[in-house]
Amino acid sequence: MQNQTSSSNIITVTYRIETAGDPEAIAQKMAGDQSTGTFTALPNETEQVRARCAARVTAVRPLAPHDTPSLPDPDTRGPYHRADIDIAFPLEAIGIDIAALTTIAFGGAYSMRGVSGIRVMDVDLPDAWQSHPGPQFGIKGSRALMGVDHGVMIASIIKPSLGLLPEETAPIIAELCAAGVDFIKDDEKLMSPGYSPLKDRVKAIMPVIRDHEQRTGKRVMYAFGISSTDPDEMMRNHDMVLEAGGNAAVININAIGYGGMSFLRKRSSLCLHAHRNGWDMMTRNPGMGMEFAPYQKIWRLLGVDQFQINGIRAKYWESDESFVKSFKDCMTPVFDDSDRPLPVVCSGQWGGQAVDTYNRTGKTLDLMYLGGGGIHGHPMGIAAGVRAIRQAWQAAEAGLSLHEMAKSCPELAASLAKWATP
Amino acid sequence: MQNQTSSSNIITVTYRIETAGDPEAIAQKMAGDQSTGTFTALPNETEQVRARCAARVTAVRPLAPHDTPSLPDPDTRGPYHRADIDIAFPLEAIGIDIAALTTIAFGGAYSMRGVSGIRVMDVDLPDAWQSHPGPQFGIKGSRALMGVDHGVMIASIIKPSLGLLPEETAPIIAELCAAGVDFIKDDEKLMSPGYSPLKDRVKAIMPVIRDHEQRTGKRVMYAFGISSTDPDEMMRNHDMVLEAGGNAAVININAIGYGGMSFLRKRSSLCLHAHRNGWDMMTRNPGMGMEFAPYQKIWRLLGVDQFQINGIRAKYWESDESFVKSFKDCMTPVFDDSDRPLPVVCSGQWGGQAVDTYNRTGKTLDLMYLGGGGIHGHPMGIAAGVRAIRQAWQAAEAGLSLHEMAKSCPELAASLAKWATP
Repeated sequence: MQNQTSSSNIITVTYRIETAGDPEAIAQKMAGDQSTGTFTALPNETEQVRARCAARVTAVRPLAPHDTPSLPDPDTRGPYHRADIDIAFPLEAIGIDIAALTTIAFGGAYSMRGVSGIRVMDVDLPDAWQSHPGPQFGIKGSRALMGVDHGVMIASIIKPSLGLLPEETAPIIAELCAAGVDFIKDDEKLMSPGYSPLKDRVKAIMPVIRDHEQRTGKRVMYAFGISSTDPDEMMRNHDMVLEAGGNAAVININAIGYGGMSFLRKRSSLCLHAHRNGWDMMTRNPGMGMEFAPYQKIWRLLGVDQFQINGIRAKYWESDESFVKSFKDCMTPVFDDSDRPLPVVCSGQWGGQAVDTYNRTGKTLDLMYLGGGGIHGHPMGIAAGVRAIRQAWQAAEAGLSLHEMAKSCPELAASLAKWATP
Repeated sequence: MQNQTSSSNIITVTYRIETAGDPEAIAQKMAGDQSTGTFTALPNETEQVRARCAARVTAVRPLAPHDTPSLPDPDTRGPYHRADIDIAFPLEAIGIDIAALTTIAFGGAYSMRGVSGIRVMDVDLPDAWQSHPGPQFGIKGSRALMGVDHGVMIASIIKPSLGLLPEETAPIIAELCAAGVDFIKDDEKLMSPGYSPLKDRVKAIMPVIRDHEQRTGKRVMYAFGISSTDPDEMMRNHDMVLEAGGNAAVININAIGYGGMSFLRKRSSLCLHAHRNGWDMMTRNPGMGMEFAPYQKIWRLLGVDQFQINGIRAKYWESDESFVKSFKDCMTPVFDDSDRPLPVVCSGQWGGQAVDTYNRTGKTLDLMYLGGGGIHGHPMGIAAGVRAIRQAWQAAEAGLSLHEMAKSCPELAASLAKWATP
């Protein structure tokens, strides 16, 4: 489904359903269950009541059937019929609260009998939803804070991801700053553990960031892991970073939930770098769960400024095709350009994916390219790791292959020697 | 894994893994990825660093292999080896924040390559986690608020679930009160839509509840749908209910997230009735996602007082066995009896499942039995629907079959005639 900003009073959700039965019948039952219906007929369920909030099936688009079910089902046999269906919900019934949308239009569908797969593919939201805050910084604001007018923003992460003391972290930051990165972050798994409380980390790291800025004029963005289940605690973490002169935070969006994010965004002055840790559970089975498209829309409306979305040849399960689609999702306005987060290309990145990333994501440079092991594990050291990545992106922009570029770039050549698969 | 309160400094998570490869190798990789490791060796990853926060595999219990993968995988062939594995995380690395636990020990695992299934089976938490608030009311407090010292608490829900105006809702409440229910709730899908704003619903419903109390001395618990993505808005909703004399709220836990729940629990004076709408997505594929056991532990620590867990012969996909296990999970202390929520048996319930519920859940009466369509759709009306359910539970307690009981109970007889499957 295309994003279509609309002044209508309809929210349309697209689902992919899979069933040994009749997809059309399943669609009708879904629309009923998600509004007025239950397991038995009811005396008060009048036409008038239904008209106020009844969901309607507006399209059923058949897909090729599958032989095996997406959810194991010993009681049925294939073929498993599949269809993409659109259900229209009256805005009157849902309003503009995300909790209402996800409860009414997403959550209930997963509990249905008679399906061997159910996946939320997309959601089309009417103009009334523009009242959500959206990103405070997004692509433009991120560029401004990092002082990068043109080109890909090169980022790194502290490695090893866990286990370093604050005083062990500081010299690594200094080295990364000297190497010329635009952005550094805590690993998403690093929040405020006993061996590296956020307070001590801020105290150890921010002087390094400020010192580098004073000497060079370059303000490196450092995103601290401020996530906490407790929104009050998260705001104290936010304030601590802000008071020390920090301008960014890593937010584990699934771990704080919609409520945590909503609370934070209203009060935040930091650039919010989202990690979607745990999202794989929702999306990894292609017949079940949720596409990234609707997921990222919700989180963008809630205020994500920068969105980690893996990358080409990531170290995780996700395919390159899935990453490319996620990138496009992030770059597509929900309402307008200002609600686009900065896509953060990451996971197993060392520069070797720069040319392919550039060519497959519409030759844009509006992205952050994040190297962890690909920088810290470079055979010539951290500074060389950063240079190698910049060289790889220069190759991409110039239309050269990495091997052509590496002829005049020893750092990139060393990366290729270490990590390129023949 | 048994719940074992422990003064140790270890958090143990049990996962069920499925792989065409070697489960032991996957287990070791998981432990590495979830602490210090990445895709390449790192100069600073010293033994000392690893010792601070490295996760360790403490058990690998092989299970029978499967022929078909839980996650479709065109690139591999079975058999798919399976094992339950335990990984021990140092408390020092996670602390007591739920966001840290779910990020470090749950979320990352789902992103691994090389598995065709990964499910979080349980989590064993050390004593330090007792500092979480837990239920404010739980089983005892719920009984006290409803004035039900003994026996099952009989509950209903407004039906049709959506579409009624507040003034259309009030007479239904009056009828349910007169019929002798202990508890009534908004449908989880009803929060504050245009046609029935919470403010107007509170204004229409609370006088009916108070009037019934003044006439009969019986205070029926009404749980209003106060969920909102915005914790500030949710607190305004909470206060509105409290000021009108209400004592309960329906909370869509997944829709507000850990942050929303944490914020609410700290400030709440209401009994929090949890609906797990959306949970099915996480648990429906038995090789993927999460068991109810760890899920409900987290939400109980966050403060759920009453937990909807479906029931025998529910209208949804969930099996009776799964419900029985969920019930047992809720009844098992995390640390002590006070952290047990009141189990709410629901979905397609009309009394016909009372005897089986009683016999399969340890013959306890510490539960709420919620009838929606089973009360509103009773052929002799709402009052008869409630009586039929009470009769069914009397049969359970007396060790009678429903058909024996129905000989002297016309309401139950009518329910059996309408809904019993031969």
